[in-house]
Amino acid sequence: MQTVSVNLGPRSYSIQIIAHETLGWLTFLKSALGHTRKLFFVSDTHTTTLMQKLRDLSLGAYECNHAIIPAGESSKSMAQFSFLLDELAEFGADRQTGVVAVGGGVIGDLAGFAAAAYNRGLPFIQVPTTLLAMVDSSVGGKVGINHPKGKNLIGAFHQPKAVWIDIGSLVTLPEREYLSGLAEVVKYGVIQDPQFFEFLEQNTAKILKRDAAILRQIVARCCRLKADVVEKDEREETGLRMILNYGHTFAHAFETVSGYGHWLHGEAVAAGMVYASRLAEKKDLIPASITERQIKLLSEFRLPVKAESGWKIPDLIEVMKRDKKAQAGRLRFILPVKLGEVRALDDVTEQQVAEVLAP
Amino acid sequence: MQTVSVNLGPRSYSIQIIAHETLGWLTFLKSALGHTRKLFFVSDTHTTTLMQKLRDLSLGAYECNHAIIPAGESSKSMAQFSFLLDELAEFGADRQTGVVAVGGGVIGDLAGFAAAAYNRGLPFIQVPTTLLAMVDSSVGGKVGINHPKGKNLIGAFHQPKAVWIDIGSLVTLPEREYLSGLAEVVKYGVIQDPQFFEFLEQNTAKILKRDAAILRQIVARCCRLKADVVEKDEREETGLRMILNYGHTFAHAFETVSGYGHWLHGEAVAAGMVYASRLAEKKDLIPASITERQIKLLSEFRLPVKAESGWKIPDLIEVMKRDKKAQAGRLRFILPVKLGEVRALDDVTEQQVAEVLAP
Ligand SMILES: NC(=O)c1ccc[n+]([C@@H]2O[C@H](COP(=O)([O-])OP(=O)(O)OC[C@H]3O[C@@H](n4cnc5c(N)ncnc54)[C@H](O)[C@@H]3O)[C@@H](O)[C@H]2O)c1
Ligand SMILES: NC(=O)c1ccc[n+]([C@@H]2O[C@H](COP(=O)([O-])OP(=O)(O)OC[C@H]3O[C@@H](n4cnc5c(N)ncnc54)[C@H](O)[C@@H]3O)[C@@H](O)[C@H]2O)c1
Ligand SMILES: [Zn+2]
Ligand SMILES: [Zn+2]
Repeated sequence: MQTVSVNLGPRSYSIQIIAHETLGWLTFLKSALGHTRKLFFVSDTHTTTLMQKLRDLSLGAYECNHAIIPAGESSKSMAQFSFLLDELAEFGADRQTGVVAVGGGVIGDLAGFAAAAYNRGLPFIQVPTTLLAMVDSSVGGKVGINHPKGKNLIGAFHQPKAVWIDIGSLVTLPEREYLSGLAEVVKYGVIQDPQFFEFLEQNTAKILKRDAAILRQIVARCCRLKADVVEKDEREETGLRMILNYGHTFAHAFETVSGYGHWLHGEAVAAGMVYASRLAEKKDLIPASITERQIKLLSEFRLPVKAESGWKIPDLIEVMKRDKKAQAGRLRFILPVKLGEVRALDDVTEQQVAEVLAP
Repeated sequence: MQTVSVNLGPRSYSIQIIAHETLGWLTFLKSALGHTRKLFFVSDTHTTTLMQKLRDLSLGAYECNHAIIPAGESSKSMAQFSFLLDELAEFGADRQTGVVAVGGGVIGDLAGFAAAAYNRGLPFIQVPTTLLAMVDSSVGGKVGINHPKGKNLIGAFHQPKAVWIDIGSLVTLPEREYLSGLAEVVKYGVIQDPQFFEFLEQNTAKILKRDAAILRQIVARCCRLKADVVEKDEREETGLRMILNYGHTFAHAFETVSGYGHWLHGEAVAAGMVYASRLAEKKDLIPASITERQIKLLSEFRLPVKAESGWKIPDLIEVMKRDKKAQAGRLRFILPVKLGEVRALDDVTEQQVAEVLAP
């Protein structure tokens, strides 16, 4: 078992990373939740088996109930949010009732927002089951739903009381979802940790085979790196948390122009990082070799490294200007200054963006 | 102009209390909101005139938009919450957009929750227009909506950036609403400030005439007293904030048994305080004279001081046991130990409650 601690004063919590075990589950719950007597589990239709396993393990010590949400991004909606609140009320949830999200980022974000809003905040446990959720969405306290006018437009900051990561649950994850999660893993190397980037380069074969020992190390390192950022900027106030958006301004444009669902998020991030890295070259921040290493690693993970030929450059730039990260219509990019370090830049011109995007 | 400061570290803010003025409005906004360029106003159908006045004053400096919500408690609903979020999205609200709630507690709670959830938190300004909202709901950061299964069941803690209280807006407030607000005013005297209680006793005539100078003092004092509590227990974690619930366990039972709307909230609180005070007598915490002074003052404010004869005592006790404040079915009451000081007690028996309620 490995443990990562997220230090946020009174909202501190720990992340347990295990492989194919459930032995410590009750002890884990007990120490995370204290006086809780009731648990409310949330899963989606693809993570119900694991949810039921954990629920059955909990039944001796807790009164349990659950809700199963349709799988997919469209469940991050006002309708499902409202449904979960109804179910919690029906269950007679009180201030101590724990909410346990078992699933990918969709379930974590949705159930987390319901936990944040019910009684102005119920204790919340994340059990991420996708690689993306393990290394990114389950850590940091951002929860929320989508609005027709914007992704993640409605939400809250609500830190979990603890995170339980069983690497074993990745066994059933579809290959494309798994590879997509690897894009965010690569991201941490580029923005924060050159040794970790090298470690990934040296272990591609094992990673592609989902070797449990390697994955445990990788997930633990990514959680630590994300926690480092979140600890310094819990509520996205100082601007530091922005470094996590490396590759994301481009990614967001790709996802919007192609329609969400064409590329998975991590696929868009993979190509987005390559373009951001090219921008950094153009601004003489880094040598081309740093971009080349990213392209090589992402390609070994079978991730896209360039935009599709049909997408129009002016359309992509238009979306970037409307991006939340843009300040007063001015483009803002997170660019590498060396492997393992990035910086936010406001002085990138549309011309420069167009040049790196040109085929 | 009078100012009350609420000290909550990075979430500190100030409350401006004025009478029939709008002169400082733009300066107030500027200092509360900084870089904001867009304002979204929310009023109900009875506070639209004031909202429009403030909006018109703001038009030179801000791009403005607004929503008008039907007056009444039933607007604190998921449907209106969702409507406000749609309107904010339609308006193209960004992270800096300010939300300005102009109205009573219903508008403050509803608009405040929309402000809390949109983009995980927009800057929020309270402009309370009822006495209850001025002395209670606009200070402290609790926002939220009702659920069919529970009042204020869904919500957040979201402190305003500033509070603007124009005593002048009370002129149009219906008499019963005004008197109801006075119950919470009396409450502050009993729980925190014996001099203030005396001040109320000595000024009943002016208070009933809504004398602006007296009201300014009263509102400022109540805001200060509430801020003192909130500063020590911002998120209802230490238990201190509970003292604000003096009279409320009984009040909640009266409101539930008679159906919400029969008594206004302050009316239920008035009678509730009298019963809580009687319980304190029964437990030898205070002499009967302290209850008598409350009865006299509340009666001068034409507030009820006893339950209606039709209500069944077992029904009332049943509701109290289900109260959020009850711990594991055990009754919890906030009882005075002298004028100006209260304490939470867990050892009140059902028998004792029944005895004080007996006609
Ligand atoms: N809160 C944050 O900080 C944060 C950060 C990044 C992303 N996100 C959000 O996360 C979401 C994406 O998360 P995701 O990629 O995990 O998507 P997801 O939750 O939709 O999961 C992807 C698919 O895999 C299935 N699945 C999950 N676990 C499985 C398992 N163990 N075996 C088989 N199938 C499984 C799901 O049912 C789904 O069909 C987005 O909504 C995004 O906005 C949030
Ligand atoms: N957030 C908190 O900490 C907190 C504390 C106490 C109460 N509350 C909430 O506050 C709500 C009650 O607030 P309220 O008593 O202000 O009710 P309210 O907002 O419904 O106002 C009462 C009535 O007065 C009208 N009105 C408001 N201002 C007016 C004016 N200046 N002139 C004429 N009419 C006016 C309203 O339209 C409404 O019809 C409840 O929902 C309660 O849960 C919240
Ligand atoms: Zn991402
Ligand atoms: Zn009250």
